[in-house]
Amino acid sequence: MKTYPKKRIEIIIEAPLSRRMMEQLDRAGVTGYSIIPLIGGKGLSGSWSSEGQIGRASGMVAIICITDAALADALLEQIFHIVHRQMGVVSISDVAVIRPEHF
Amino acid sequence: MKTYPKKRIEIIIEAPLSRRMMEQLDRAGVTGYSIIPLIGGKGLSGSWSSEGQIGRASGMVAIICITDAALADALLEQIFHIVHRQMGVVSISDVAVIRPEHF
Amino acid sequence: MKTYPKKRIEIIIEAPLSRRMMEQLDRAGVTGYSIIPLIGGKGLSGSWSSEGQIGRASGMVAIICITDAALADALLEQIFHIVHRQMGVVSISDVAVIRPEHF
Repeated sequence: MKTYPKKRIEIIIEAPLSRRMMEQLDRAGVTGYSIIPLIGGKGLSGSWSSEGQIGRASGMVAIICITDAALADALLEQIFHIVHRQMGVVSISDVAVIRPEHF
Repeated sequence: MKTYPKKRIEIIIEAPLSRRMMEQLDRAGVTGYSIIPLIGGKGLSGSWSSEGQIGRASGMVAIICITDAALADALLEQIFHIVHRQMGVVSISDVAVIRPEHF
Repeated sequence: MKTYPKKRIEIIIEAPLSRRMMEQLDRAGVTGYSIIPLIGGKGLSGSWSSEGQIGRASGMVAIICITDAALADALLEQIFHIVHRQMGVVSISDVAVIRPEHF
């Protein structure tokens, strides 16, 4: 089946920042994204868990979006602007999709 | 450590469709998959959230499976048949695994 | 925006094993990881669901970490040591990140 190359961006951030991130994705022209809950993890600021917080972190989420390579680069700059003073991990990878008109 | 190339398929669909999708994956010979809950997101049909639905969507899930490249192509056709008139995002990417006999 | 190549490791295991896995990731020098809840799935041991267990499995989780390629290979050996007699799927893929000093 014919597929089309796109970029998948995975953003792990504190839940309270997720609204700001989604608004930024909207403004940048991203057509869709999904929010995955996390139940725990570890980062440079230490470990955290959604049951019985360890350390100062509140919950975190992963936001996933798939976008055109042409848009991805500008998007990374904007995402970085939001996360650079916060906890958070941003990664980008190659994927293929079957409905290119959706992105 | 020796690894083996496989395909990772990520299917984001409305939760009520997930049973039909799993049955299709079973019939196609997929040996395993995982279902991840989503707590919100945005697609061509608008934004949605698992708390206080926005718009008409009910909850959505991500189904992830890892499969042989040989099986992946036929699988994409079958998955597309289920999602093509629905909300949903299907993406495929390259991964490597350490236990090839599991797929 | 400048990005740096890394490896993304996705480990799907039974929830009770997750603590042992996280301790192993810590010892190996992984700087961060995230834990995603799963609500159901299927593996070589059969199907399972977080509501009304099917079969003998308790809940499962996905642990995601991003690491240097140099570390990834040794890590796979250690992860394999934990999962090889258990249910579980380990896959590794290429990603790019924007903050290399975080990994």
